[in-house]
Amino acid sequence: MELLTTNNVWMMICTALVFFMHLGFSLLEIGLTRQKNTLNILFKNIFIITIGLLLYCLVGFNLMYPGEFNGVLGFAGFGLEAPLTSTGALDLTYNSGYTYWTDFLFQGMFAATAATIVSGAVAERIKIGPFMVFVILYVGLVYPIAGSWKWGGGFLQTLETPFYDFAGSTLVHSVGGWAALVAVCLLGARIGKFKDGKIQAIPGHNIPLATAGVLILWLGWFGFNGGSVLSADPAITSLTLVTTCLAAASGGVVAALVNALKFKNLDLTMFLNGILGGLVGITAGADQMGPTDAIIIGAVAGIIIVFAVSLIDRLELDDPVGAIAVHLVCGIWGTLAVGIFGNLAGGAQFVSQLIGVVSYAVICIVSSFIILFVLKKTVGIRVSEREEIEGLDAHEHGMAAYPDFRLNDN
Amino acid sequence: MELLTTNNVWMMICTALVFFMHLGFSLLEIGLTRQKNTLNILFKNIFIITIGLLLYCLVGFNLMYPGEFNGVLGFAGFGLEAPLTSTGALDLTYNSGYTYWTDFLFQGMFAATAATIVSGAVAERIKIGPFMVFVILYVGLVYPIAGSWKWGGGFLQTLETPFYDFAGSTLVHSVGGWAALVAVCLLGARIGKFKDGKIQAIPGHNIPLATAGVLILWLGWFGFNGGSVLSADPAITSLTLVTTCLAAASGGVVAALVNALKFKNLDLTMFLNGILGGLVGITAGADQMGPTDAIIIGAVAGIIIVFAVSLIDRLELDDPVGAIAVHLVCGIWGTLAVGIFGNLAGGAQFVSQLIGVVSYAVICIVSSFIILFVLKKTVGIRVSEREEIEGLDAHEHGMAAYPDFRLNDN
Amino acid sequence: MELLTTNNVWMMICTALVFFMHLGFSLLEIGLTRQKNTLNILFKNIFIITIGLLLYCLVGFNLMYPGEFNGVLGFAGFGLEAPLTSTGALDLTYNSGYTYWTDFLFQGMFAATAATIVSGAVAERIKIGPFMVFVILYVGLVYPIAGSWKWGGGFLQTLETPFYDFAGSTLVHSVGGWAALVAVCLLGARIGKFKDGKIQAIPGHNIPLATAGVLILWLGWFGFNGGSVLSADPAITSLTLVTTCLAAASGGVVAALVNALKFKNLDLTMFLNGILGGLVGITAGADQMGPTDAIIIGAVAGIIIVFAVSLIDRLELDDPVGAIAVHLVCGIWGTLAVGIFGNLAGGAQFVSQLIGVVSYAVICIVSSFIILFVLKKTVGIRVSEREEIEGLDAHEHGMAAYPDFRLNDN
Repeated sequence: MELLTTNNVWMMICTALVFFMHLGFSLLEIGLTRQKNTLNILFKNIFIITIGLLLYCLVGFNLMYPGEFNGVLGFAGFGLEAPLTSTGALDLTYNSGYTYWTDFLFQGMFAATAATIVSGAVAERIKIGPFMVFVILYVGLVYPIAGSWKWGGGFLQTLETPFYDFAGSTLVHSVGGWAALVAVCLLGARIGKFKDGKIQAIPGHNIPLATAGVLILWLGWFGFNGGSVLSADPAITSLTLVTTCLAAASGGVVAALVNALKFKNLDLTMFLNGILGGLVGITAGADQMGPTDAIIIGAVAGIIIVFAVSLIDRLELDDPVGAIAVHLVCGIWGTLAVGIFGNLAGGAQFVSQLIGVVSYAVICIVSSFIILFVLKKTVGIRVSEREEIEGLDAHEHGMAAYPDFRLNDN
Repeated sequence: MELLTTNNVWMMICTALVFFMHLGFSLLEIGLTRQKNTLNILFKNIFIITIGLLLYCLVGFNLMYPGEFNGVLGFAGFGLEAPLTSTGALDLTYNSGYTYWTDFLFQGMFAATAATIVSGAVAERIKIGPFMVFVILYVGLVYPIAGSWKWGGGFLQTLETPFYDFAGSTLVHSVGGWAALVAVCLLGARIGKFKDGKIQAIPGHNIPLATAGVLILWLGWFGFNGGSVLSADPAITSLTLVTTCLAAASGGVVAALVNALKFKNLDLTMFLNGILGGLVGITAGADQMGPTDAIIIGAVAGIIIVFAVSLIDRLELDDPVGAIAVHLVCGIWGTLAVGIFGNLAGGAQFVSQLIGVVSYAVICIVSSFIILFVLKKTVGIRVSEREEIEGLDAHEHGMAAYPDFRLNDN
Repeated sequence: MELLTTNNVWMMICTALVFFMHLGFSLLEIGLTRQKNTLNILFKNIFIITIGLLLYCLVGFNLMYPGEFNGVLGFAGFGLEAPLTSTGALDLTYNSGYTYWTDFLFQGMFAATAATIVSGAVAERIKIGPFMVFVILYVGLVYPIAGSWKWGGGFLQTLETPFYDFAGSTLVHSVGGWAALVAVCLLGARIGKFKDGKIQAIPGHNIPLATAGVLILWLGWFGFNGGSVLSADPAITSLTLVTTCLAAASGGVVAALVNALKFKNLDLTMFLNGILGGLVGITAGADQMGPTDAIIIGAVAGIIIVFAVSLIDRLELDDPVGAIAVHLVCGIWGTLAVGIFGNLAGGAQFVSQLIGVVSYAVICIVSSFIILFVLKKTVGIRVSEREEIEGLDAHEHGMAAYPDFRLNDN
């Protein structure tokens, strides 16, 4: 009972920290885009966290943790049903690490994250109505079904050498990242981003808020990875925080360094994306690594970020916040790294990690393509040229984010 | 001892989260008002949290928890006096959920909140000196005396069917809300808000900060409601977090939806106020509800917000941040909801809830009216027309919030 | 085991809170300076927290806690080496308050803080390359060696009456403050700050963010001081939070009041610096004081701040954010206050406190002077006049913090 109480306190705090990541994502996204679309992005983010929790309550939790199932798709019924003792009290034997309620809420906070990742990639040009439909389907159905394959005890968990994804390099970040990639392809680039084969930088309008967003996300990662231990086990939780922070630090420093060598400038946003890349990279194996492993994984993520951002630009894929590089590319890297570094390293594990990556690629690409393609062909997913130029805030919301400030047209 | 340590850790964290709500309130208030009054609002908020803690140390804690008393007014003496064992160490048998020091600090963080609510409603036109006097009297005396009626074991606690207010829909939010209503009536509307019987929107100057404020408040509510369990009891704390978050989510979604149906636009500030309405609404009974109850209570709060904001506008009451709708109206709703939903539902409970609501209406309206009326008739409570037009920052503080930015006159 | 788990949970949360202080410092620094140097300041802060963690992993932790040593300089080797049991698991007997990993990470978060303090004082005119070199040497070597003198069990700990510094009024804040003083002297004032013997105010460009920074720092101090108990001991941790918050509150209120009496205006930044001064002041003895002691220590810090800021200005030392007044002067005050107030008060203790203050003055002044003087004479530490006038963001980073906003030249 004492230990359950302590475990549950830790898990509740981690839940709060993961919730707080939604502020981090919000600030990062608005900071790296233009002021004329600020309200729109905030509206989307607030929508995602609220509808995400409600959907996870209605169907998501029971899709993701269906109990005994065929390993691909199961459903334990609508709504929440807490296990009770014969006297009607909450059954605390549910788990030694947390109560039923904490389990739901912690996982619910994760669920919304995947859609938030997409939100950044499609910013400044997606119609908000269709995006909300996409969020409902992707957070409500795709994320939990995909999640059940591993965390729900599905076929990736029952492989001979089980696929391993500690806190979601693949299950959360790549799930968001694949959909971001599909959405960016279907949506096209923002007007002016690629002109006569040349890449035009579209600078973000509020770098202090973007920086605050990244530091809030790093803070949130204490809960994201620390809570994924699913108890307050002192050895594992504290190791996890150390690997998480060291990977973040090395990811940032290396990305800034590589960028400085490559482009001869000290680029703050690359530093920030390097930190995020390190965090995403360590997430799959944060509990299985030593500090040196973590620093290497972060450093590789930092290198990857610089080149992935360039590559995605050269492919004329327009991802305003670098979500694909951070969440998809570093998510894949981190997932594979579990087979290369740390306690689980080995050929069989590496193959299982590959199987996992491919499995999630398939479900995410297919499902997000179907949803977004149908939306594109029916109601359309892109705002009009005029709306894009004048800003989504004015057109979709009839408000301005900074009405007392004089602004530049851009 | 192990359990006390765990309980106390949880309560200290909740204390920190409630403290952090003061940043949330600050950002929300400045975000929804004009830039020319930003410093003034921040000064007020910083004053409230600092003076509030000092007053709670000096008199508040012992007014609110006077021990045995007549049920209406008691006082256990000035300052803090920690219970000691015979060896001079802190007596840890004080409470199984927290130490004496944690008890004081957690309650102290609550105390300042009530005044903060008023601050938002009177923003952009109140004189800062008289407002500081009001804060000292309201936080120092009215809040703790009113609080003693229920949480201090006073007459509302000793009703046959005791009035129930888990974390303060009434004791904190309505206490602030009633004073906000009285202050708005005595103060009058901002220049230009109501012109020839028509309502003029005065847009807030920094919506990203307002949004950040709401997400910080939601985070803080993990501590506000979670800490009101007064221990880390795993079943109750985790249930409380679930009901809190679900009510916030449904409040926001429903307010946005109702607003979209009524006014045909996607209004972010209504979404945000709906979240806050849901949070205030669930606060009175967060530990007594199931998830479905919580979603309904939040949804009703979301509907209330849209109509209450309209109604308050039509009554020509000028509440720049919607504090009356959020904290007073949803506070009353949440308090009554305890008699309608969840474990305590029933006629007798509903009557007790009504008695509670009316009792707090009486003490808050009377006391805030006396304080503010006397101030109005002596030193005056409203800044000059010129100061209001040019901004309180320049006149009361001689500084600007954003000196490097070019600003619009408004 | 239950107790270790609880203790470790508390320490991990405190670690997260201290990490979060880096956002507080970042926002405070940019808020109190001009927009044209915003990116530069953020880049420095992000560099400090990332490189700081990596250096503390590489050498700092083992310099600061070398085990048995001569009391002045010891080194336990490169990298981290967790103590293991015979079965290869983490040895949890390491400490009853936390694991090896938590120990490292908590102390690592502290390490970076000292450099951050310097960053504020040298803002708007230091060359970023040399500053990064300074950070590497000061955080990597000076801070941990200096820290070993007390926290590592060195000669200040083995005095007959040991020097006492609970959470770092001297070991962290003065260590940063002395280097800030040296750097400001070597660097000179910003162009336009002192003109014909008159002091020109250079207003900060974003007061809302500065205010948010201070509230985040206050929140972080829950972990900074609360975690310095090095366990979750309920009596001491909760007392520590109470003294911390009361000193912050009284520091702020008194600084605002003294400033209002002296300069006849309600100065928000002085209020904020008073809060920080109170926090720095209580840090050396937060666990040894009662609430009244804490209020007095904070109040004195509040008075000090007003006069120290004036004095530093009159000495034509240009410290844009008041770092010297807050961290050095109040750090010295707080350290000496341990000999005057609370459990340890007494002549012998006061002398030990003085010895500590002087010892840290010597190592910090000498080492920071050597580092910065060498840098000044070789690569130079100050940007060109043109770069300073046009802003460091444009020259060092080729980006703007707020590209969508119209800005004033200043």
